[in-house]
Amino acid sequence: MCERWHLFRGTPVRYWLESELAEIFDVRVRPSAATADVIYDQVAERLPRDDYRPRALYGRFRITVLATTDDPCSDLAAHAALEESSWPGRVIPTFRPDRYLEPGQPGWHEAVGQLGEAADVDTGDYDGYIRALEQRRRYFVAHGARSADHAHVDARTDPLAPRVAAGIYDSALTGRATPEETAAFRRHMLFEMARMSCEDGLVMTLHPGVRRNHHHPSFERFGADTGHDIPIRVEFTDALRPLLERFGTHPGFHLVVFTVDETVWSRELAPMAGFYPSVYVGVPWWFLDAPDAIRRFRAAVTETAGFSRTSGFVDDTRAFCSIPARHDMSRRVDAGVLARLVSEHRLDEDEARETAIGLVTTQPASVFKL
Amino acid sequence: MCERWHLFRGTPVRYWLESELAEIFDVRVRPSAATADVIYDQVAERLPRDDYRPRALYGRFRITVLATTDDPCSDLAAHAALEESSWPGRVIPTFRPDRYLEPGQPGWHEAVGQLGEAADVDTGDYDGYIRALEQRRRYFVAHGARSADHAHVDARTDPLAPRVAAGIYDSALTGRATPEETAAFRRHMLFEMARMSCEDGLVMTLHPGVRRNHHHPSFERFGADTGHDIPIRVEFTDALRPLLERFGTHPGFHLVVFTVDETVWSRELAPMAGFYPSVYVGVPWWFLDAPDAIRRFRAAVTETAGFSRTSGFVDDTRAFCSIPARHDMSRRVDAGVLARLVSEHRLDEDEARETAIGLVTTQPASVFKL
Amino acid sequence: MCERWHLFRGTPVRYWLESELAEIFDVRVRPSAATADVIYDQVAERLPRDDYRPRALYGRFRITVLATTDDPCSDLAAHAALEESSWPGRVIPTFRPDRYLEPGQPGWHEAVGQLGEAADVDTGDYDGYIRALEQRRRYFVAHGARSADHAHVDARTDPLAPRVAAGIYDSALTGRATPEETAAFRRHMLFEMARMSCEDGLVMTLHPGVRRNHHHPSFERFGADTGHDIPIRVEFTDALRPLLERFGTHPGFHLVVFTVDETVWSRELAPMAGFYPSVYVGVPWWFLDAPDAIRRFRAAVTETAGFSRTSGFVDDTRAFCSIPARHDMSRRVDAGVLARLVSEHRLDEDEARETAIGLVTTQPASVFKL
Repeated sequence: MCERWHLFRGTPVRYWLESELAEIFDVRVRPSAATADVIYDQVAERLPRDDYRPRALYGRFRITVLATTDDPCSDLAAHAALEESSWPGRVIPTFRPDRYLEPGQPGWHEAVGQLGEAADVDTGDYDGYIRALEQRRRYFVAHGARSADHAHVDARTDPLAPRVAAGIYDSALTGRATPEETAAFRRHMLFEMARMSCEDGLVMTLHPGVRRNHHHPSFERFGADTGHDIPIRVEFTDALRPLLERFGTHPGFHLVVFTVDETVWSRELAPMAGFYPSVYVGVPWWFLDAPDAIRRFRAAVTETAGFSRTSGFVDDTRAFCSIPARHDMSRRVDAGVLARLVSEHRLDEDEARETAIGLVTTQPASVFKL
Repeated sequence: MCERWHLFRGTPVRYWLESELAEIFDVRVRPSAATADVIYDQVAERLPRDDYRPRALYGRFRITVLATTDDPCSDLAAHAALEESSWPGRVIPTFRPDRYLEPGQPGWHEAVGQLGEAADVDTGDYDGYIRALEQRRRYFVAHGARSADHAHVDARTDPLAPRVAAGIYDSALTGRATPEETAAFRRHMLFEMARMSCEDGLVMTLHPGVRRNHHHPSFERFGADTGHDIPIRVEFTDALRPLLERFGTHPGFHLVVFTVDETVWSRELAPMAGFYPSVYVGVPWWFLDAPDAIRRFRAAVTETAGFSRTSGFVDDTRAFCSIPARHDMSRRVDAGVLARLVSEHRLDEDEARETAIGLVTTQPASVFKL
Repeated sequence: MCERWHLFRGTPVRYWLESELAEIFDVRVRPSAATADVIYDQVAERLPRDDYRPRALYGRFRITVLATTDDPCSDLAAHAALEESSWPGRVIPTFRPDRYLEPGQPGWHEAVGQLGEAADVDTGDYDGYIRALEQRRRYFVAHGARSADHAHVDARTDPLAPRVAAGIYDSALTGRATPEETAAFRRHMLFEMARMSCEDGLVMTLHPGVRRNHHHPSFERFGADTGHDIPIRVEFTDALRPLLERFGTHPGFHLVVFTVDETVWSRELAPMAGFYPSVYVGVPWWFLDAPDAIRRFRAAVTETAGFSRTSGFVDDTRAFCSIPARHDMSRRVDAGVLARLVSEHRLDEDEARETAIGLVTTQPASVFKL
């Protein structure tokens, strides 16, 4: 596909890559089959240099805080080591409990066993399981975590009576739970995660609506997270209602909702963020983290929820070197959106300036409790 | 939230409010915590003045006709009094029968009793109930009503055999109807409302797809219509099919469909309005009644259905003083849309001018039979 | 409706018509009630002329290839006659098997009988039916066909065990198959069509998601394809998964997906085309084949899938004289999209120029294997 590189130019992946090459590795030629070797050599020459080591780049990128996502059983030793070192950077953990909340997934049985060990709590029954999760969340809070991140196939949050949840938990442990039961348990646990967030203060972030490992042959050959996850339609209004009826106005509770289904922006997320003081609309995620999509996001959300009910820019990437390009792009696009509002006399220039700055400083700091 | 007012500037609510303050109350300072008292005092000084009384503002706003929504049992005494007065304004009632059509909702039993009394018809059986609705519609027509307005959670219109409808009606009166039966009855009644509209000429307007009272604690504390209704996905193609198969080409029947789910504009509503002579696409409603959303509406609808199959601008507000701002905004945005079509050589300038005027004069007058 | 012609100007139908009148029939007056007779006379004067005969217009329009859609039982005699003639144009058949794949539709029983005769294979059982389809596809390939075109109400592709499919086939032949069974069979057959495409090389094109003959009275009076088909919501991620898991990475397999539901562009089709080497996003179809919709298409798709994963422009029309207008419009709009990317420094000018040309030359030629 690379023989026709320009047919892909204009797409974010290429934008990140070209920006990385130019800004970080000082590559000044246009990527093509003809220039591939030159570019490779130039990048290879830089990478071993001291000023290209991760901490050096962290400083050069002027990162304020970097959040990893971590398994609830992790001892967070790396975070502790960083904390004890003299390095001034801030790298905090994030509680990511998905696989512990889905009894329908392979490996769940072993996972809750490990959870019990990590928490030093017997997870042989539902009460112990809940206590273990609460304990691990507290451990994460004590090690600097500010958020718990959740990604399930849907966003439903229907609570179960504790007795019913305990019954499904028992069935799941012995492998007798039905798919309906394990789905019900997972939705109940998302409700429980909100309850725990109200208690321990972790910001709850939600990234639902993706069919993971759409192509099994690729999954079997390359494993998960190798590029073949495909979004599906998602529903929030009814799905989040039980959670929001119960916790939506809880003081200090923050729920940041991200989506790859842009149809929910004006229809569901902006109205919800407009009413519920806990709800923030996450900035465009994944496939939508691109200039035109960000413009559509602001156009769809701002007229109902303004800017203050959105998360402010955060990038969500495994590609460390793409961070500056993502932030740079986002800032330029948001500044363009604000400039349009000024030019249409919907915002004054000093307000636009203050908003542009707030969206990348105070707003994300406040929403994510940094 | 008001400490960061500008983060909400650019949203319609703020736009209405600022425009109201400036144009109607002559407030020339920017709203902020620092100016709140000054603004309050200035508005308070104006409100008691004779030229700020509703009839004076009606004249100042140059309103042609104002339609209220009224309970089918209303005797419309206020409308009659206005009619008999020397005041030249035109305030007409609208038939809004939702709560009489939903046996599944609390209070329905009492409502149909009152309906019987208002119509002087025994609503103890289905035939009487239908006759009572027909009688009240005629009463509204005789008192100037031009439309019947309908807002249910979905738009389905599947008719029942009269015998089946009568059976559910009996069950509902004795509290034995199932949720499936009451939903089926409601959908059947929307079909029946179209039949009656074909007979008595009332324009049928439809506003479906909102989950009312999403947050029960707020409902219990503040009541309905207090800002916590959230839209849901809506479907029209299959939902309206039974109604349109039967009445869609009936001479003189008008069905105006409003939505807060913008995904249906290009996919369902514009194609339906393009074929069915009775169907008009309602202009953007509620959360979508804002500049960017109106531009998206025109972009999504015009290429299939033109301008003549849309309703022309009507605002739908409880805020009397926001009316001029809403119309002003809508006209500016539509004029901008037309100007773009002219600049792209898709419309000639004289046609654009005629369309701009038609959209706020002849078009709504004809669609709503004013 | 034509008395207010300008209210429809700006819509594609009018655009095609006006462009046809001006460019092909040299009509220089604006269509209106007053000019109708003049225009009619001018068109009537031209139509009988030799330079307005179809082959003359084919040359004048500079068409490279024109694909008809044909019944699998067709002997393609007209194509053969053209092929044998000295005329240099290229008119190729397309395999369009819908009615043979839907046992739930009226006429299916007779259709599979005719299919057996055309293929000289006994279609009295499932094996014969499959062999007959394979045989007819080979016949089409031998007569120049490059694609098989499929349009069902949904896009599901769940395969059945051959024994199960054979059982439903038998039931359907004797009129005992349930609606669930005939739907399951149709979805299985779409999977089978992909299998056959992998074997015989026909490009698979898919146009799902339209409720055909929405208004039965019009269907009974005027027949199918008379303007009352209305789109419905469509789902691709889960629907196409079985097909793509099995054939999505098959070398040489091409699946071009068209839609009238624009919500799937960024959410489902662009991500799928970004991963599966076989998947191409079809350019805007039917109601969406218009300037603003094409801009929305490029904005929604390009940031994930670039230009090279889209089909390149093809028009899909029964109106021969509208072909130049459609291509002209599409090229102008795509050029505008590319110009915007250049002006935003997301593409260099030489790349934009090469892409603009590729989208109407090499890209469709390669995607449709022309």
